[in-house]
Amino acid sequence: MKTLILVTGGTFDKEYDELTGKLYFRDTHIPEMLRLGRARLALSIETVMMIDSLDMDESGRAAIVTRCHQAREQAIVITHGTDTMVETARALAAASLDAKTIVLTGAMVPYAFGSSDGLFNLGSALSFVQVLPPGVYIAMNGQHFRWDSVRKNRDTGTFEAL
Amino acid sequence: MKTLILVTGGTFDKEYDELTGKLYFRDTHIPEMLRLGRARLALSIETVMMIDSLDMDESGRAAIVTRCHQAREQAIVITHGTDTMVETARALAAASLDAKTIVLTGAMVPYAFGSSDGLFNLGSALSFVQVLPPGVYIAMNGQHFRWDSVRKNRDTGTFEAL
Amino acid sequence: MKTLILVTGGTFDKEYDELTGKLYFRDTHIPEMLRLGRARLALSIETVMMIDSLDMDESGRAAIVTRCHQAREQAIVITHGTDTMVETARALAAASLDAKTIVLTGAMVPYAFGSSDGLFNLGSALSFVQVLPPGVYIAMNGQHFRWDSVRKNRDTGTFEAL
Amino acid sequence: MKTLILVTGGTFDKEYDELTGKLYFRDTHIPEMLRLGRARLALSIETVMMIDSLDMDESGRAAIVTRCHQAREQAIVITHGTDTMVETARALAAASLDAKTIVLTGAMVPYAFGSSDGLFNLGSALSFVQVLPPGVYIAMNGQHFRWDSVRKNRDTGTFEAL
Repeated sequence: MKTLILVTGGTFDKEYDELTGKLYFRDTHIPEMLRLGRARLALSIETVMMIDSLDMDESGRAAIVTRCHQAREQAIVITHGTDTMVETARALAAASLDAKTIVLTGAMVPYAFGSSDGLFNLGSALSFVQVLPPGVYIAMNGQHFRWDSVRKNRDTGTFEAL
Repeated sequence: MKTLILVTGGTFDKEYDELTGKLYFRDTHIPEMLRLGRARLALSIETVMMIDSLDMDESGRAAIVTRCHQAREQAIVITHGTDTMVETARALAAASLDAKTIVLTGAMVPYAFGSSDGLFNLGSALSFVQVLPPGVYIAMNGQHFRWDSVRKNRDTGTFEAL
Repeated sequence: MKTLILVTGGTFDKEYDELTGKLYFRDTHIPEMLRLGRARLALSIETVMMIDSLDMDESGRAAIVTRCHQAREQAIVITHGTDTMVETARALAAASLDAKTIVLTGAMVPYAFGSSDGLFNLGSALSFVQVLPPGVYIAMNGQHFRWDSVRKNRDTGTFEAL
Repeated sequence: MKTLILVTGGTFDKEYDELTGKLYFRDTHIPEMLRLGRARLALSIETVMMIDSLDMDESGRAAIVTRCHQAREQAIVITHGTDTMVETARALAAASLDAKTIVLTGAMVPYAFGSSDGLFNLGSALSFVQVLPPGVYIAMNGQHFRWDSVRKNRDTGTFEAL
């Protein structure tokens, strides 16, 4: 079974621009993270966009939904900023992608910085997507949640069941 | 559902002794790794032993089996050196722990060193253990294998299906 | 000979706030960096301020000059943002601190992130301050410059001789 | 003024072989460390040998001395294992390299591992070598010592004045 990873940006892939002192996006770190994890899954990686999830809008969500529809893979992991991850999960759930297992994940700290949860979350999401039944899920904090029973707690920075 | 993590040592937990230049075991890094992963699972962690898996013998395996029998948790992750992980999985499978889901995992590079796969594998194992049916499994390289259909390829350092 | 380290903030000490996604200051990382470097110098560390060097103004510079005047130590290292490091060096040179060796240093990437030059620069500045004659210097990129013969090249992010 | 870096191995450059679980030497990390430190010095790097300093013998020391004699550079940094660094410094001092400033440095923890002092020590040694008068020195723990007034304290893993 082949798995598709769709990259949309988010904290996961933010980097520090040493000339401006600002955070920005360049290329995704997913291939490097998979090498570090010695992942031996049959995987395709595709960058759909590279944005802060606060900038995710309806057209961005439509692009993600379209890409999931077109995908021949049944298992899809989407890396996404945490702030609007739940909204994108809802849009995917509304899109009748019935035969697919879709897991959204992200990070609270950029992978490129020390102390990132990114590698843990990627290992988690790739594992959940292989064994969960079709549906749309969020994998964060070592847990998985159905799209309609989760919220991000902005005070703690963690995801919790509704 | 509460999950038990049993620590047995292995590459996961090796450290560099700067006075002797040798690798050794001190305390497990699992709590620190769970903090990094922002894990929000109900977890107990117990150190059963702290050994190189090349030193794992029948009495060591018996201690692990006993601890699994006694555990009230239904989901158990065991950190273990990779060299004899399959043998310990076999001993657990022979022990009639029918109602439990047991996932063994490890690392090719110590967590304390750069370039470790440990955090990825821990995220993976904790995810698989929550959703796989009862049985004994190995989670490595982003994959999961039943205890009786896996071997470590010593040339590549990866686990592969039989 | 005792050395004083004056902390003023700068990129050196920036951290990532995982709740807001912004960079901010908390405590200085200098003690942790000295532990990592196994430094065995007689050192005092004092935080004068914790600011981005773009926010450094005349009153901030006056506070640094005052602190250098008061210091009983003859050797002083100042951690400082790189953008206005040269201006602060000039203010110190104008202040008739004739018997002291003062070395300013900083970092292009926060110490807390991967790929920081901070530890290299700290090792460099602490070494230069022990052997250079009295005066005000900048230590960056493995080099040292007198305060009046250096500029930051904003295109390359490096310091160069005038 | 150009600086020569002579690489001889030592803890600095040890790596973890994930197939055997042993420490070993491959290539030197010095170029990567200089990139991280954004070093802008005129430098040549040459690998003389790649050995544990416990294996350094008279012929090894003779090779280092010969290379220093031949060098056109007046400033030379030598990376060396800490266990026999003082002996090699003594051999260099006996070799009448009068016009040169030679600084030996090393690391207590391999650069490739977390928690290494290597980057700090490299920044320190490269700085000392530019400003110290001709002679043979050891730079460790943020300090510099003349070759004949230093010993490694094997209990603490630090260098101290005689």
